[in-house]
Amino acid sequence: MPDLNITSVPGFMAGALHCGIKASGKPDMAMLVSDRPATAAAVFTTNKIVGAPVIVGRKHVEQGKIIGCVVNSGCANVCTGKRGLSDAEKMCSLAAEHLSSRGIHGELNQFLPFSTGIIGHYLPMQKVAEGIARLVPQLGSTFDHGEQFAQGILTTDTCTKQAATKLKLGDTVVTIAGACKGSGMIAPKMATMLAYIATDADVPVSLLRRAVRLTAEQTFNCVTVDQHTSTSDAFVCLANGRAENPRMTLQSRHYRAFCDALLDVADSLSRQIAADGEGATKLVTIEVTGARTAAEAKIAAMAIANSPLVKTAIHGGDPNWGRFVSAAGYSGASMNVDRVRCWVGGIEVFGRGRPTGVELSTVETAMKAWHVNIRVDLAIGLESVRIYTCDLSREYITINADYHT
Amino acid sequence: MPDLNITSVPGFMAGALHCGIKASGKPDMAMLVSDRPATAAAVFTTNKIVGAPVIVGRKHVEQGKIIGCVVNSGCANVCTGKRGLSDAEKMCSLAAEHLSSRGIHGELNQFLPFSTGIIGHYLPMQKVAEGIARLVPQLGSTFDHGEQFAQGILTTDTCTKQAATKLKLGDTVVTIAGACKGSGMIAPKMATMLAYIATDADVPVSLLRRAVRLTAEQTFNCVTVDQHTSTSDAFVCLANGRAENPRMTLQSRHYRAFCDALLDVADSLSRQIAADGEGATKLVTIEVTGARTAAEAKIAAMAIANSPLVKTAIHGGDPNWGRFVSAAGYSGASMNVDRVRCWVGGIEVFGRGRPTGVELSTVETAMKAWHVNIRVDLAIGLESVRIYTCDLSREYITINADYHT
Repeated sequence: MPDLNITSVPGFMAGALHCGIKASGKPDMAMLVSDRPATAAAVFTTNKIVGAPVIVGRKHVEQGKIIGCVVNSGCANVCTGKRGLSDAEKMCSLAAEHLSSRGIHGELNQFLPFSTGIIGHYLPMQKVAEGIARLVPQLGSTFDHGEQFAQGILTTDTCTKQAATKLKLGDTVVTIAGACKGSGMIAPKMATMLAYIATDADVPVSLLRRAVRLTAEQTFNCVTVDQHTSTSDAFVCLANGRAENPRMTLQSRHYRAFCDALLDVADSLSRQIAADGEGATKLVTIEVTGARTAAEAKIAAMAIANSPLVKTAIHGGDPNWGRFVSAAGYSGASMNVDRVRCWVGGIEVFGRGRPTGVELSTVETAMKAWHVNIRVDLAIGLESVRIYTCDLSREYITINADYHT
Repeated sequence: MPDLNITSVPGFMAGALHCGIKASGKPDMAMLVSDRPATAAAVFTTNKIVGAPVIVGRKHVEQGKIIGCVVNSGCANVCTGKRGLSDAEKMCSLAAEHLSSRGIHGELNQFLPFSTGIIGHYLPMQKVAEGIARLVPQLGSTFDHGEQFAQGILTTDTCTKQAATKLKLGDTVVTIAGACKGSGMIAPKMATMLAYIATDADVPVSLLRRAVRLTAEQTFNCVTVDQHTSTSDAFVCLANGRAENPRMTLQSRHYRAFCDALLDVADSLSRQIAADGEGATKLVTIEVTGARTAAEAKIAAMAIANSPLVKTAIHGGDPNWGRFVSAAGYSGASMNVDRVRCWVGGIEVFGRGRPTGVELSTVETAMKAWHVNIRVDLAIGLESVRIYTCDLSREYITINADYHT
């Protein structure tokens, strides 16, 4: 639904501006605010080295109600010690202070801070403070405000990433809409770098937490651009309850419908991240079927998705399927080696331990498509997984060899 | 010792020629032959998908005595089913047959077959057969023959990789010399793609096997170019006993001296593989210290070495050390997060949870060197590891996006 974005959700306002962190002059300070405390659930990176905002955010989200998210891009506030922690808290207190003047009264711990960008640098707090002071009066609920927010959270991304849906819970129409960023340092192990989903659904906090955890596992955690799990990954869902839908329980069909719709929105967002991977020219889907366990399916699929030999073959449109099969082979996943099969774009290229003899030119056409689908069947069980990734191009090197300067 | 190569070892002869597998016209058939059955030990890839020559080689080396190695480059004979197995055996029987005319009489299972190149294609057996027939009469023991062998085993390598040493065991002088190949699909989990070390030392087979296993663990298994473990990795050591050195036992100082010398030769070869990684412009050493266990040290070092964000930062000479620390963070290795430290070229950039404040321009100089050393201390134990790798350049993409065609 391209006519919907995060500010289409009743009760949410947003906005962004340039406060001076990014040298490019692009927006680098963004906010998403609910007009009342929203039920909140979030998952963060599993990297042991985490950013100060992750430490603060984990603590704040625990009490279950959140008013707003304050996000800067261009500096990640990671590896910055005590000063970093106090800077992250300051972002929350500044937001709380300025929002009072707009009649929204919240505590420091009802705000979540987020920072994305380079690691190992302190936040320029004067610019941040001035940015928040200027931004709060400009926050609004038009479609444009939603677009600004989606822009303001980006770093090396080449485009905004948004998704939305509406669903009926009984007679009540509920909106779910999200925005996220992520292009490099993408191999989420809990959720991917900065994804926000807002909804006016009324969802009990325990159910929202469960929905967020399961959704992350099936969507953001199934994306990899470069296997480098960020120190700042976060996926937050805010449910302000304005829709006043029928009460949900774990077994209710309304909760199932809500979870399915949340999954759809998150799936779209995670696919957009893979498609906009740094330097990406193609979206790639890796399916592993016939695995012994779901965990092994994922291990094999991630080994294929993260192999630079696989990613460069796809970049070149080269039907070199030996690389796909051999990556599954070294992944550690169990397989029936004599029965392993491999398909490229639906065409079987390897089966029963030998080439199927299909014309390579046919496979080449499938490899040259914008969306390339690779499937490997391990022939040992019933579990499967689907991973989104992208190709590896010279542009990735260009982007990352000189990121610092 | 640049004046020594594999044919400097008394009793070994070698050679190579072009038999028509490689379109480039470069040598693609090579042999290394001992004038008597040599005690042999080998380790092969741990990839579950293995080449036919690995299956045949594992079986042949079990009986402990080997006369020769027959190696083709340009086609890996992997994922080729029963026909692949019979082709690999045929390479051995052809070698045995033709060597009879030179007075060297061996059984089929005293030869080891090796194939390196693209996966999923059958060997052109007529060319292979003609190649072996032409090559056997040309085998010899001059320095030139050793160079030919080192050339003949290459694929995308840009240079030969050789190392040699002499040592005294009592009054006996013993030579150890080796050649190897490997440039892409390099992340050995047992030994790296095609490494051959010959020696005239007399080493009991059980001790040779132990020495090969331990050497592989500390050298070839500590190299990664692109984390893609090949289907054909093999490291073979042939000891023909011609030196008639004093008898070795597990505890004898002669065995320790032999193991140390073998380690030196293998260490040099593995370093040459990293330095000639596909597209490499730099040799990179990753050291992880202060780890809880040796396995965790390696997990953390490999996560750093395999991260494309780390490899591109090194390529660009960019002192973006947050990438090194964050890669250790997601590796799964234990660490004392508040005490983790990081050095680049000996300069401490991160300590006690925050930047040390060293001038980035100083670090940049270390990052721009040909040999870049990164050290991360996990501050939780006493174990350490050192990994050889290389940077990731646009040239890697160029080489691998069009490898097939």
